[in-house]
Amino acid sequence: MIQVVNLALLGFGSVGRALVELLIQKRAALKAEHGLEWRITALASRRLGCWVTTGGGFDPERLRQGQFVPAERLPTTDVGAWLDASRAGVLIETTTLNPHTGQPAIDHLRMALERHMHAITANKGPVVHAYPDLSALAKAQDRRFLFESSVMDGVPIFGLFRETLPMAELRTFYGILNSTTTVILEAIEKGADWEDGIREAQALGVAEADPSADIDGWDAAVKVTALANVLMGAGLHLDQVSREGIRGLDPAEVRTAHEMGSPYRLVSRIERAEDGSLRASVRPERVTGALAQVQGTSSLIHFETDVLGGLTLIEHHPRPEMTAYGLLADLVRAVTRD
Amino acid sequence: MIQVVNLALLGFGSVGRALVELLIQKRAALKAEHGLEWRITALASRRLGCWVTTGGGFDPERLRQGQFVPAERLPTTDVGAWLDASRAGVLIETTTLNPHTGQPAIDHLRMALERHMHAITANKGPVVHAYPDLSALAKAQDRRFLFESSVMDGVPIFGLFRETLPMAELRTFYGILNSTTTVILEAIEKGADWEDGIREAQALGVAEADPSADIDGWDAAVKVTALANVLMGAGLHLDQVSREGIRGLDPAEVRTAHEMGSPYRLVSRIERAEDGSLRASVRPERVTGALAQVQGTSSLIHFETDVLGGLTLIEHHPRPEMTAYGLLADLVRAVTRD
Repeated sequence: MIQVVNLALLGFGSVGRALVELLIQKRAALKAEHGLEWRITALASRRLGCWVTTGGGFDPERLRQGQFVPAERLPTTDVGAWLDASRAGVLIETTTLNPHTGQPAIDHLRMALERHMHAITANKGPVVHAYPDLSALAKAQDRRFLFESSVMDGVPIFGLFRETLPMAELRTFYGILNSTTTVILEAIEKGADWEDGIREAQALGVAEADPSADIDGWDAAVKVTALANVLMGAGLHLDQVSREGIRGLDPAEVRTAHEMGSPYRLVSRIERAEDGSLRASVRPERVTGALAQVQGTSSLIHFETDVLGGLTLIEHHPRPEMTAYGLLADLVRAVTRD
Repeated sequence: MIQVVNLALLGFGSVGRALVELLIQKRAALKAEHGLEWRITALASRRLGCWVTTGGGFDPERLRQGQFVPAERLPTTDVGAWLDASRAGVLIETTTLNPHTGQPAIDHLRMALERHMHAITANKGPVVHAYPDLSALAKAQDRRFLFESSVMDGVPIFGLFRETLPMAELRTFYGILNSTTTVILEAIEKGADWEDGIREAQALGVAEADPSADIDGWDAAVKVTALANVLMGAGLHLDQVSREGIRGLDPAEVRTAHEMGSPYRLVSRIERAEDGSLRASVRPERVTGALAQVQGTSSLIHFETDVLGGLTLIEHHPRPEMTAYGLLADLVRAVTRD
């Protein structure tokens, strides 16, 4: 039996474009393996406006070249009105993160769920700030709220626990979840000063024009909160994460630590206090073992559960294509397990 | 809705006992989270004979102390007759591996599937020697053939691809899949000769009385074949694995390599030749990076897929409890996704 699913894309930057590429590349396999055909019936972004289509949706080959045909631009920037006109069964959201509020992504995902669409996001803001609400709404609507790409790109961290580790109780975890700081510290280890290190990370495309969200540990704090809340039901708020960025490190000390084989890295941790309460932290630590082997834009996470002992996952050199893959995997999950 | 599932345990060594412990420990959570109650209605092993029960099955608290009550010993060692009398919906098989034939486990799993039971095994022999047959039989019977524990214990390698990485195409992988050789090589690195190294591994309980299956690479070859056949549809036979054990290594060279930071380890690989065909190998290699950080009984596997780039999983210091967890996870999978 073939199922045709209509997709609405909100956000059309590098990840959105990579998703269109991947959907085209996997078109035949999606049909053969999952009986799934897709049409992109609507697309919107702040820069491009709100577009909807009729009939078979966008011409995907031309969409990936940035041509929105055959389509109509709505005379509005109201996301609700756009969703009403979208004909979509799934919203895929890839807009920019506001780590402190999760908005406006939270509102957009809620609007999709209220319209009985699945809500899929690559954005960790809604996970940190609205996971219980959006999950409950999804359940009430018999739809899915999925966000595999929001931490470690396409690496299936959330799916690992939800789908492959039934009955496992996550006790603690730690990891290198922010790669911009690794890239900056590596540059300093090779002799750069802070400014050169940041410029190098920016040239690689891993640091923002304003790198403070990475350097001061906000990005890592958002990720550790998202993981703790989803995987451990921790109910943490972002401001409960004890957070220390890498700004205070002395470049000479960074180089010495590296030469001694235990370099500084920005490490995120959830630990359990003696009274059973959880403590979240992000801070520079001198690392050894597998942590010290994490290079460049790679990430590592180590889990301790009651049933498995230690399990470590390392993601090597992610690209936007991998975030797009996480979205595709969520799409398959959502529409094949209705 | 509560579902009661009757279990037949075939094999009752350290893994089987750990499974009974875990079932008791997770009893309340299985009921609360999955609406699942269990009874062990039958148990058999070569040493203990074939036991069946009536009513509510074995008393699990007394079963874990090795007391088979209330139960009756059948006047037969025929597994088919035992299954007929078992009242079970699931066979959980933990007998000893014959790596060269997969028997008699294959026959036992087939008998279970033919009797419309789910067939779960911790044994990699049936995966290597009968995966297509047993999978097809399971499908025809609308039952599951599951074997998560057969490689890397409870780490959900098979589930990772089957359940969390839809549409991903596994291109190549490599890893340290045999830990006995790591333990022996580590002993030699610290100054032991071959005989002492083997004795040390035996004392730790990781090497068999006859350690040749590990030392000569058979155990790793079985694992690499199981992974390639299930995850890549490779259709490999065990004798197609290019296999070189660690016996030929010179202890002095092992120590020098270790001191230089790139120790010898037994590495298993699947590579793709230029014509697209797969080549499987097991051989000692000098390793660096995360591979060189794998210590003692830990394992590492690194996957390259078309959609994710590199993904590495490390399992730390497994115990029989982790194999038991893989069986429990398979049980939940089988009976909650009927």
